[in-house]
Amino acid sequence: MVNITTPLRIGYVLFPAFTALDVFGPLNVLNLISITHNMTLSLVSTDLKPVSVDRSIVDGIPGGMLASSASPNFTQFVLPTHTFDTAPDFDVIIVPGGAGSRNINGTKPHVDWLRQRMDDPELDYMMAVCTGTSLLARTGKIAGRNATTNKAAFNWVKTVEHAEDVNWIAKARWVVDGNLWTSSGVSAGTDMTLGWIEKLYGRNESERVRNLMEWNALNQTDDPFAEYYGLV
Amino acid sequence: MVNITTPLRIGYVLFPAFTALDVFGPLNVLNLISITHNMTLSLVSTDLKPVSVDRSIVDGIPGGMLASSASPNFTQFVLPTHTFDTAPDFDVIIVPGGAGSRNINGTKPHVDWLRQRMDDPELDYMMAVCTGTSLLARTGKIAGRNATTNKAAFNWVKTVEHAEDVNWIAKARWVVDGNLWTSSGVSAGTDMTLGWIEKLYGRNESERVRNLMEWNALNQTDDPFAEYYGLV
Repeated sequence: MVNITTPLRIGYVLFPAFTALDVFGPLNVLNLISITHNMTLSLVSTDLKPVSVDRSIVDGIPGGMLASSASPNFTQFVLPTHTFDTAPDFDVIIVPGGAGSRNINGTKPHVDWLRQRMDDPELDYMMAVCTGTSLLARTGKIAGRNATTNKAAFNWVKTVEHAEDVNWIAKARWVVDGNLWTSSGVSAGTDMTLGWIEKLYGRNESERVRNLMEWNALNQTDDPFAEYYGLV
Repeated sequence: MVNITTPLRIGYVLFPAFTALDVFGPLNVLNLISITHNMTLSLVSTDLKPVSVDRSIVDGIPGGMLASSASPNFTQFVLPTHTFDTAPDFDVIIVPGGAGSRNINGTKPHVDWLRQRMDDPELDYMMAVCTGTSLLARTGKIAGRNATTNKAAFNWVKTVEHAEDVNWIAKARWVVDGNLWTSSGVSAGTDMTLGWIEKLYGRNESERVRNLMEWNALNQTDDPFAEYYGLV
């Protein structure tokens, strides 16, 4: 158990073509835990326009990122609650992944905002799911830290600016290095969030929520996907 | 493998306070499979206004449904693409669950629309995730059929109108009865969708997508949650 602010102030960063499950898996955990533990959630982006959900996290598809424009009927949107200018202080910031993380110019405002917030003394946890870790790497502020990311996109993430300074862990469902929590791809973000809830509120609470979600969890060191993608 | 329409026309029904993961888990599967298999997605509701995501699927909380108004900062919204009046024909309709399914008056238009669509000869599959099965039960059109639903809310679902005519299966990750596919709670919907993709496009495709999502699946008959909630 740790000393935590009440209400716990959670901020989620959204960029175009983020992976919905990277956000809504962890949010299901947080929604359920928020019934008994006071917390607020903000969805933060460059402006308040609807942010598109990505169609693909696939590596190696010609063109790299499959924009939602490829299939206008197959797009979902989420509405932010704050802009980078209006976002309040947070105790934890969570960065999702998704095809949109490969749009280096498009996510520059997000990286700039993250770089600034990582110096905020009120920030207790910085978390990233899937290729969201690439945005953290690009801030230059996780040099020398242990981190992991999406296994299908592992080798791509290692090519972004400042990524060579990060100690990438190939086989891990998620990695904890001080206040930095990073997970493997997509579904792993929900396992990491359950692990974080266990740290904050204890195992009974994380298990209660997992059972409500009927979620089949993997533990922190269980990672069959590192092997599947030939990373170990 | 089955004979399937191209493009496969998928419709998701949204009601206020649906569980986001019931939608975005299966949609992650469908988004990824849509790269190689042509399909369209429609999100259908009473009107085109943003539909709120629920805060809770919890059974037994005083008041039953925890409305998002309880915590205005902790609400997400999704934008529909069609209304019940403008929705096209579908090959498959998917119904999510969530706290909002307990709002019997609020979901009456959805049940009425589903009842009508269940007579559509073009409809090949009717699927429900979590307490979404309660809406199908209320149509009166799954009498005598095998079905399952959320395990924490299992006994509540059995109280809705016409539920007594359904053959409820307590221990199952998901249940297939002809064109009717119903899953257990929340995360089980994603396992069911992977099972459905296996039936449509084969095991290689469902496994490829599961690995891209780094999803830790349970099989159709694996259901530790039925026991956890004392249903078996």
